[in-house]
Amino acid sequence: MNGLMMDSQLTITSIMKHADRINGKSEIVSVTGDNPLHKYTYKDAFRRVRQMANALQRVGFQSGDRIATLAWNDYRHFELYYSISCSGQVCHTVNPRLFPEQIEYIINHAEDKFVFTDPMFVPLLEQLQDRLATVQGFVVMTDAANMPETSLKNAHCYETFIADESESFDWPELEENSASSMCYTSGTTGNPKGVLYSHRSTVLHSIVGSTPEVMNLAAEDVVMPIVPMFHVNAWGTAYNGPMVGAKLVFPGPKMADGDTLTKLINSEKVNYSLGVPTVWLALVGYLNDTGKTIESLNSVVCGGSACPLSLMQEMEKHGVVVHMGWGMTEMSPLGSYNRPQEWMQDGTQQEQDTWRVRAGRVVFGVEMKIVDGDNNELPWDGVASGALLVKGPWVCSGYYRLDDKPAVDEEGWFNTGDMAAIDEQGYVTITDRIKDVIKSGGEWISSIDVENAAMSHPDVQEAAVIGVSHPKWTERPLLIVIPVEGSTPDKDAILASLDGKIAKWWTPEDCVFVEEIPHTATGKISKKDLRDQFKEYAYS
Amino acid sequence: MNGLMMDSQLTITSIMKHADRINGKSEIVSVTGDNPLHKYTYKDAFRRVRQMANALQRVGFQSGDRIATLAWNDYRHFELYYSISCSGQVCHTVNPRLFPEQIEYIINHAEDKFVFTDPMFVPLLEQLQDRLATVQGFVVMTDAANMPETSLKNAHCYETFIADESESFDWPELEENSASSMCYTSGTTGNPKGVLYSHRSTVLHSIVGSTPEVMNLAAEDVVMPIVPMFHVNAWGTAYNGPMVGAKLVFPGPKMADGDTLTKLINSEKVNYSLGVPTVWLALVGYLNDTGKTIESLNSVVCGGSACPLSLMQEMEKHGVVVHMGWGMTEMSPLGSYNRPQEWMQDGTQQEQDTWRVRAGRVVFGVEMKIVDGDNNELPWDGVASGALLVKGPWVCSGYYRLDDKPAVDEEGWFNTGDMAAIDEQGYVTITDRIKDVIKSGGEWISSIDVENAAMSHPDVQEAAVIGVSHPKWTERPLLIVIPVEGSTPDKDAILASLDGKIAKWWTPEDCVFVEEIPHTATGKISKKDLRDQFKEYAYS
Repeated sequence: MNGLMMDSQLTITSIMKHADRINGKSEIVSVTGDNPLHKYTYKDAFRRVRQMANALQRVGFQSGDRIATLAWNDYRHFELYYSISCSGQVCHTVNPRLFPEQIEYIINHAEDKFVFTDPMFVPLLEQLQDRLATVQGFVVMTDAANMPETSLKNAHCYETFIADESESFDWPELEENSASSMCYTSGTTGNPKGVLYSHRSTVLHSIVGSTPEVMNLAAEDVVMPIVPMFHVNAWGTAYNGPMVGAKLVFPGPKMADGDTLTKLINSEKVNYSLGVPTVWLALVGYLNDTGKTIESLNSVVCGGSACPLSLMQEMEKHGVVVHMGWGMTEMSPLGSYNRPQEWMQDGTQQEQDTWRVRAGRVVFGVEMKIVDGDNNELPWDGVASGALLVKGPWVCSGYYRLDDKPAVDEEGWFNTGDMAAIDEQGYVTITDRIKDVIKSGGEWISSIDVENAAMSHPDVQEAAVIGVSHPKWTERPLLIVIPVEGSTPDKDAILASLDGKIAKWWTPEDCVFVEEIPHTATGKISKKDLRDQFKEYAYS
Repeated sequence: MNGLMMDSQLTITSIMKHADRINGKSEIVSVTGDNPLHKYTYKDAFRRVRQMANALQRVGFQSGDRIATLAWNDYRHFELYYSISCSGQVCHTVNPRLFPEQIEYIINHAEDKFVFTDPMFVPLLEQLQDRLATVQGFVVMTDAANMPETSLKNAHCYETFIADESESFDWPELEENSASSMCYTSGTTGNPKGVLYSHRSTVLHSIVGSTPEVMNLAAEDVVMPIVPMFHVNAWGTAYNGPMVGAKLVFPGPKMADGDTLTKLINSEKVNYSLGVPTVWLALVGYLNDTGKTIESLNSVVCGGSACPLSLMQEMEKHGVVVHMGWGMTEMSPLGSYNRPQEWMQDGTQQEQDTWRVRAGRVVFGVEMKIVDGDNNELPWDGVASGALLVKGPWVCSGYYRLDDKPAVDEEGWFNTGDMAAIDEQGYVTITDRIKDVIKSGGEWISSIDVENAAMSHPDVQEAAVIGVSHPKWTERPLLIVIPVEGSTPDKDAILASLDGKIAKWWTPEDCVFVEEIPHTATGKISKKDLRDQFKEYAYS
């Protein structure tokens, strides 16, 4: 027997209509290439979204067509999120930081019909265009005055493209499981894989993301997503911001520029922001160097990779509480969120420090389990560490056009590729990437735990740990360190400093100093490159 | 093209599993008939829920079977919400305050298979049982020591019923559109009508209900639903409390007992509560009489009927901010919620008073429109008032077994039966029930506005306004007043006091004093009964 409730579909269109009607007065503030500070309201935005929908219809896109964006966070990119998805097409956000070959692969694999691009990526696309078989045209996200000369075929200027279009549009009734947007993950091995979000997954992720136990977003908030809009939909803020009526602040191409971020926070009274550790390092560095303050900013979420405790403490000196978040492109991205809880105040400082660096608590909607190498479920005791498997309405069930590579196991679980321990209250600690875990004498060593321990030494600027082969233990950890500039690091002292912070047998056999540690396009340490670099290294 | 997201179903089971695993330590505190203060954790609760699921399976219920409850808010009722719905049956909460004939009608119409009842309703059921054709058994919600002697056939004691059952249960995989629970609306005319909620509608309502713009619920909250669990699922708190991990406090049969409520608030540190105006009147009366305080209680939501400004002001003296909420059984119930917004602080006191008594802002997920008598859509300008129509995933599309009476119009809109004005920010003001609106000289007079204005006169304890026939104007308003005890009310003075508060032509032609105003079973003024009572009254 079914319930007698309306069959209302969960669509991005419903977010747009709600925001337009209820939160129309809320503002969107952007830095763009052609404007240092563009301001308008949601009502203005959705008026232009309807113009763009008419323009897309004029070009003749069909339902399900992929349309790419190659752009930073600003109001035009925001408009495309809605005009493309609510028209029934798929908004495919491409990461412009990838290698040109990867961008070419991604656009061809997705068979994108059009590319919307920031002016700064026009030269890149000019180089690639002859190899982009399906792309029929380009729209440069700027106005006529700033439109660059270009050899791109069928190139339009964004403002001209929509200028003559009507401000009203009859939105199609979309089915909630229809595709809305797309993002490719750039793993460390193999070709990038496409994750295809649905209207339903996006709406559910947005509602849960705004709840008090997660981002806690309301109309009075001023939210600045520094995480790129090409990186898992700016972690959902381009959707849940409008849903709740928060003011949105987009830093455009100035993502890791302390000066721009500080000015925006202060002029727009940003109280919540989102980004990877690199961004917060840049901000803290700038504030410490200049003595400037950021009074309005209360809390930020840090994701993408683990946030060192030292960075959290630095941020706290500037009045900002750092919440860890964990997720992935395949999870839209929300999996867990670490919000300080009242009961934590009763813990010792050391306990609190241990608690706050964890990946956070499982959010409602996501099911998790951890399993050992034989797929046996492990207990949630905060100690047992295993492969982290997830399920949920915003977790991918497969990759785009990779039907031969199932993304989930027979019971429908998606393997995150992370190793984790979970405690009895659902707090997740990511202990390693499965492929980075070090297998020593049949036991697992968490490279992340060792790295975090090493990071707390004052001479260590960045640390990475990889497993290298060992005649007796199969693998043993090697610590690779970038020393703090001007320091005179001593490897024995650094290794000795780990004592008491990690299990004795986890202590690396050796420590080497380097000037650079390779990173992936999304800012994570590339263990694969490090292992290549140190493949000749062996313990004897 | 569909997205490649998991087909995870939104079920009450997912709330239960999340709460059990993540929020297992949070408490549920209850007053019951057999225990003045019962305390246990969610983990304890769901262990017993699994025992009950085994017991229900033992009896042999089929998927979709309706099982009735006739009970106050306590932990056993909470357990039934989950054991029944997550087993695939329908938890049919029956309002024990209805007339016995209505209860008989409802149980027969729903074809309930079993009735779970508080001990105090056993005598009532003993009278009815021979006329309850489909009911095969009864479970009295108490322990063996308190089990009453009863002539009920196939009667069980709750604790004995589950005592020998296993604490593990293999929950069925339910489809999200399957029926989970049921509540009959007792309109003022005709037979009660059944609303059949689905797992999906319940989960969506729970998530949105917990967001910061609505109830704003987190793990650190202590929530006391004084709204009955037989009244639209206690407005969702039996679901979103566990979802976020809030502590729940159930007052049992002591719903409008100031002493019990005050003790519970203070001993359990309740910070958020929910109820109808009658409850808050009782609480304020008790506090004023005894001089007691309720330090922990910060805010309450008041729904069910309009909350007079004077009551809000009284509550504020005790440190409690009253949020208006609006909805109905057919809407699960959430439609709008009035949370104070930062910008409101800039208003004058009079503006703030006007804003706060409104029904609140449209919540995300619910679409609204107002229409005139010819079904033309009216503007959202805060002035135009029309019939309020709604849509959304937790709005009913029909009534149970009333296929011949469509609940929605051709475009899928549900007519709420309320008249409302909506402003450009989505704030809803309920101006009247459509059937209570007074039609004077071709224009509409809002009886609610006139009642609110009259309520602010110090000699008025309760006021009701109805239309009575008038030779020239068709109808003119009549003010009916219960005077404050000990006052010497003057009808001309009361009518004169309305001057400036309502339009001149809305002023009632006359005012009459009565000792009692009839109310419906859900505590609303019964305008139908009043009109019957004054049917001989006529202006000349």
